[in-house]
Amino acid sequence: MPEVLEGIKVLDFTRVIAGTFCTMYMADLGAEVYKVELPGFGEVMRVQPPVKNGESGFFITLNRGKKSIALNLKNEKAKEIINKLVAKVDVVVENFKPGVMKKLGFDYDAFCKINPRIIYGSISGYGQTGPLSDLPSYDLCIQAMCGLMSMNGYPDKPPLRIGNSITDYMSGVLMVVAILGALRHRDSHGGEGQYIDLAMYDAGMTMLENSISRYNLTREIGGLIGSHHPSASPHNVYKTADGFVTIIIIEDNGWKKLARIIDRPELADDPEFCTIVERLSRVEEVDQIVESWSSTKTSAEIMAIFKEEGLACGTVHNVAEVSESAHSKARGMLLEVNQSKMGPVTIPGCPINYSKTPVKEIKPAPLVGEHTKEIICEVLGYSDEEYGKLVDDGIV
Amino acid sequence: MPEVLEGIKVLDFTRVIAGTFCTMYMADLGAEVYKVELPGFGEVMRVQPPVKNGESGFFITLNRGKKSIALNLKNEKAKEIINKLVAKVDVVVENFKPGVMKKLGFDYDAFCKINPRIIYGSISGYGQTGPLSDLPSYDLCIQAMCGLMSMNGYPDKPPLRIGNSITDYMSGVLMVVAILGALRHRDSHGGEGQYIDLAMYDAGMTMLENSISRYNLTREIGGLIGSHHPSASPHNVYKTADGFVTIIIIEDNGWKKLARIIDRPELADDPEFCTIVERLSRVEEVDQIVESWSSTKTSAEIMAIFKEEGLACGTVHNVAEVSESAHSKARGMLLEVNQSKMGPVTIPGCPINYSKTPVKEIKPAPLVGEHTKEIICEVLGYSDEEYGKLVDDGIV
Repeated sequence: MPEVLEGIKVLDFTRVIAGTFCTMYMADLGAEVYKVELPGFGEVMRVQPPVKNGESGFFITLNRGKKSIALNLKNEKAKEIINKLVAKVDVVVENFKPGVMKKLGFDYDAFCKINPRIIYGSISGYGQTGPLSDLPSYDLCIQAMCGLMSMNGYPDKPPLRIGNSITDYMSGVLMVVAILGALRHRDSHGGEGQYIDLAMYDAGMTMLENSISRYNLTREIGGLIGSHHPSASPHNVYKTADGFVTIIIIEDNGWKKLARIIDRPELADDPEFCTIVERLSRVEEVDQIVESWSSTKTSAEIMAIFKEEGLACGTVHNVAEVSESAHSKARGMLLEVNQSKMGPVTIPGCPINYSKTPVKEIKPAPLVGEHTKEIICEVLGYSDEEYGKLVDDGIV
Repeated sequence: MPEVLEGIKVLDFTRVIAGTFCTMYMADLGAEVYKVELPGFGEVMRVQPPVKNGESGFFITLNRGKKSIALNLKNEKAKEIINKLVAKVDVVVENFKPGVMKKLGFDYDAFCKINPRIIYGSISGYGQTGPLSDLPSYDLCIQAMCGLMSMNGYPDKPPLRIGNSITDYMSGVLMVVAILGALRHRDSHGGEGQYIDLAMYDAGMTMLENSISRYNLTREIGGLIGSHHPSASPHNVYKTADGFVTIIIIEDNGWKKLARIIDRPELADDPEFCTIVERLSRVEEVDQIVESWSSTKTSAEIMAIFKEEGLACGTVHNVAEVSESAHSKARGMLLEVNQSKMGPVTIPGCPINYSKTPVKEIKPAPLVGEHTKEIICEVLGYSDEEYGKLVDDGIV
């Protein structure tokens, strides 16, 4: 059974995280991805830690299963090769600062003339339009500008960076959605491709919980509330005898169960605690009650008790625990790839589980230019002699 | 020009965030989404703040553009209606705890017998398989269990909840990717649908930066580092005269520019600061140097200076600032919908910008059962009389 994107070819100008996360999923789902890199050094993430034998664990996670073609893009012959590839592929993805691809002669209008069927996706920090579109950006800045950071942290401290590149990841996956939608449209409506503009800023704004409508309706400004929640209590991270757990009680019935669990049955019907409104008015007290119990039990004990009662609870796992977890293994989320220099290494797997078209074996990430010859000779049909000349001229 | 998902019909059993975020994007992109709710109260998010005239701003954001069919699912006649709809739709999405849909007789095997073309997507906290699959879960617990929370916070404090429901959002969008992939496969390979199992836990694991490979290769455990970064300095949130900005310098050349900007030219070539290795060894000192300058300027002044120099910087905007931002407006990310009870309200727009098939006007979210009659009579062809009987019998 072919994979869902088998037959789809992607010309990939992506770098760092947002764009590479997009084409990572396309490769996982069976697309053929040609990653364009500069000869020698290659993409900037190739030196990001952890590095072993010259390969980066971060890079190989985001670029598994892709093919690398190394081209000296300042050379006209290299541009000719790009243009020939454009004629052969379905999708182009890039995440340079707006304007960079145009300067290279690689903008949508140029590619569309060569291949009107092409879907061309651009991810950028602030998008291709709008007053901020030419600002330099990284996820750290976008988290700040789009409001996400103003909701992460403690009320008595500065806003805090969310501990992962959340706007990179979300914009990358949204671009996969956008591309698959555009492919569907192309293939069912006369074969016409199109351009897609996607901003990390916009992607971030979709994750602001209820706060846009809340501000619009009430002028309330969502802010820093630690691990609390405006409409649940208890809702926090609590110390245990050997770590931390998260506990969340939404319904008053859950509070009754909790009162019994923590051996404080009198709190079940205590008018100061038995309704969510009351518990929200004394969150600190609720937290103290819960933690004075949780800190006497191990996280595993608490998990077992809560599971028995049908209440939600989670142990705060560190990355070692997640990496050794039987559940992570059972879910196929600890994927071993065998890199040509680094050797075997475990990276996160693909979270999409299809019943009939499962993701096949995921191939390692390429070395810089590992597939240059294959792509130029087999996809574009250059002869060995012609290829040799490209090498001699320093074009590949 | 039709929208990219025009003609696709979705039977939507989703609730709360993860599943509703998935079908929100499907509706945004032109699919017809039939949201199944219980008569009367409807979905649980309908009472989540902010509530105005009985409508929730959170609910209407996640459910814009969908149609609501209210059915008393305990009744066999209601199940018959569901089964008839299954024969008419392309996609089913649900995010109940594993097992709930089977108890209702609504599992994939049952629906597949009625309509083998159907794509059936299940989002759950831990997935349909694996040792944790039957644990109750909310995003708060999944953030803890999948390792994300262990990387969000300060080293001297407990791990902190990421201030938005990140695993809900990511799993929701990944499910759109999965469904669009399965639709592509169905329509190009004989019309066969399939089942998709997607876990918030797995989705969370894909956002752990480099930490899975890092642990595997070096046994280092990524942890709480505030707003710092293991390979950039400065990289933090800095006080300004009127708020906070994020500043990030990756290349040593950027440090030289920064030294000039902050009027400390002697630091440009100071061996204690001029290389990233040195700056990372004295992060606190670097932060003090930057903040002693930034705190004397407004955020807007700093943004202007950094833009001029081509360096990345971001003002920490609160939700009011994001909601009033000219950029948010220019990007179409402040979408006004006119709810039938709540009236006009601003919600986040759709971040996917197509050049040829733009997202058309997004319709309001439905009232409970607003489209029950339309769906039963127009889609399934019941007569007015038959529909009247369903009303009389308390089935709709």
